[in-house]
Amino acid sequence: MRVDDLDTPVPVIDLDRVEHNLAKMQAYCDKHGLALRPHIKTHKLPQFTQRQMELGAVGITCQKIGEALVMAEAGCPDILLSYPIVGAAKVAPLAELAGKTKLTVAIDNPVALDTVAAAAQQAGVEIGILVEFDSGDGRCGVQTPEDALTLARRANGNGLTAFRGLMTYPRGPRTVPFVADTRKLLDEAGIPLQTVSVGGTPGCWDTHELPGVTELRVGTYIYHDRATVGAGVATLDECAVHVIATVVSRPTEDRAVLDAGSKTLSSDRVAPSVGEGFGLILDYPDAVITRVNEEHAVVDLSSCAKKPAIGERLRILPNHVCVVSNLHDRMAVSRNGEVIGEWPVAARGCTR
Amino acid sequence: MRVDDLDTPVPVIDLDRVEHNLAKMQAYCDKHGLALRPHIKTHKLPQFTQRQMELGAVGITCQKIGEALVMAEAGCPDILLSYPIVGAAKVAPLAELAGKTKLTVAIDNPVALDTVAAAAQQAGVEIGILVEFDSGDGRCGVQTPEDALTLARRANGNGLTAFRGLMTYPRGPRTVPFVADTRKLLDEAGIPLQTVSVGGTPGCWDTHELPGVTELRVGTYIYHDRATVGAGVATLDECAVHVIATVVSRPTEDRAVLDAGSKTLSSDRVAPSVGEGFGLILDYPDAVITRVNEEHAVVDLSSCAKKPAIGERLRILPNHVCVVSNLHDRMAVSRNGEVIGEWPVAARGCTR
Repeated sequence: MRVDDLDTPVPVIDLDRVEHNLAKMQAYCDKHGLALRPHIKTHKLPQFTQRQMELGAVGITCQKIGEALVMAEAGCPDILLSYPIVGAAKVAPLAELAGKTKLTVAIDNPVALDTVAAAAQQAGVEIGILVEFDSGDGRCGVQTPEDALTLARRANGNGLTAFRGLMTYPRGPRTVPFVADTRKLLDEAGIPLQTVSVGGTPGCWDTHELPGVTELRVGTYIYHDRATVGAGVATLDECAVHVIATVVSRPTEDRAVLDAGSKTLSSDRVAPSVGEGFGLILDYPDAVITRVNEEHAVVDLSSCAKKPAIGERLRILPNHVCVVSNLHDRMAVSRNGEVIGEWPVAARGCTR
Repeated sequence: MRVDDLDTPVPVIDLDRVEHNLAKMQAYCDKHGLALRPHIKTHKLPQFTQRQMELGAVGITCQKIGEALVMAEAGCPDILLSYPIVGAAKVAPLAELAGKTKLTVAIDNPVALDTVAAAAQQAGVEIGILVEFDSGDGRCGVQTPEDALTLARRANGNGLTAFRGLMTYPRGPRTVPFVADTRKLLDEAGIPLQTVSVGGTPGCWDTHELPGVTELRVGTYIYHDRATVGAGVATLDECAVHVIATVVSRPTEDRAVLDAGSKTLSSDRVAPSVGEGFGLILDYPDAVITRVNEEHAVVDLSSCAKKPAIGERLRILPNHVCVVSNLHDRMAVSRNGEVIGEWPVAARGCTR
């Protein structure tokens, strides 16, 4: 079957572009002596986890225990959970995971560390710890090197977990000084700092310029999207996932409605400097998706010289491709316009 | 098991509130002689479709063929597809659906009408047609009564479909004059106008004040959410779905991070007049969810006198509950704080 014959809306992966993107990132990391630990939240597919490991990744990154269990059960031998795991209900699934793969968990507070220690005890294995620090993004992470040291000591002192290093997301302006200051404190305390892990596809090609960083966590690079193209780290030709949609209505001269709404594209936006609307229609780059409801994209055609007809199929570059993977049970997989498979998104919907 | 013991993040349905909301809407429609045709996009659960039919609904509304097939296979005898179905790939599934339930499809253009006619031919059954008109919302719908007449004639003239009436979403200022003008044209043409269907939970309690309207399509009323409370059509005590989330990090005095991000709550916003952020934290109404990433909600606590601790469980009222149903494979179902089931969201993810 050809991509042109698929029922719409449908997200389609271009396998050749995926291969290109995976190889390019691994080559970059190899050249600069960086460990590559891909974040699988973008693809959620064991097939691509396996390929990333074959190409030289040291392991993968997962956000939630559920995602990590899917990948561990598919054979992934080394997983970083880059998320603070908190609460009694998490202990049993985390212990199950620790029994299936070499596990490291990122934490930024003692409650999360205690949860991990309880899981390590239940599993009877040691779990690695990265201490997450806030390098300027304002999400999770300890605020000072002193707090990082306190958690590192506690991780190494409980007999169940082992401090392995520092992690931040993505890699804000405080990254390098924070790492240097913390390294000094750790040296004084006799605690080795093995890993310094930074994340984020935007900015990825500058990672080697950050002294002290040893590991790169990137997810979106496998597919790229409107946001990473807008960030200047990929070209449109490197984008490997598009949503094919159909024009289902043309109520007025300047309005089209497509069958890909927020259930297909999500409601995620891009920075105003990158572009307007809820995705880029490649065939009509002057068109703007001004609104998405669950099943409708309303498109403003007023700037378009040529306008699409009802029934026409359009190719949309998503603003944020990771959330597209999460919205679809299956992804069509293609090569040269031919559909070579439809893969279940095995780690979709794992919010826990 | 108690709701308090569920792993988080988790969406929880309060069954008593659902019963209250369903009964209240049916009573309203009965009182005013309106047919109630609930939109199942909100719950996506055959269990609630059945309950809505038991209480007196004339049938249900679905947006996509896939959703409708789930409900038809669960026994629903009368379905309106309120979406323009366009394209060759839709004919076979639409024909399959037409063989399983009494089917009506809303269209606003001849290409969609031809798709429905082709499905009727393949199924060997007549399919009803509503002509969608634009009453001011600026999404789908014909723009003039004359265009509505043209489509009604074409629907009645092809031997495969039958014109049954008019539909709009939601019910803009042009609704009443448009219906009156179209009725006049249809009368002159000898075409009966059986159904005039309007939609939308916001504004629902005023439907009886719209002369000529015969049918109400509402979805969100079963659960309600921050948007419908903000629209003044429900109280907080009528909201029947909440997301339970855990505080996983407290990086600073004024910042908390919860384990419910856009994969749990979506990125949907509410109107600025209704409120800020990505959901209302009931336990801390002065807190603002300023940002969601896929698994993180970043909360600004600067206006809160009391602040939550790491590990604390918070109850969040979603901005838009329909998209929450679509994000979760299962919903916990509760009564008086006791979990009485976990139901698979059978029509989740049906984008086609």
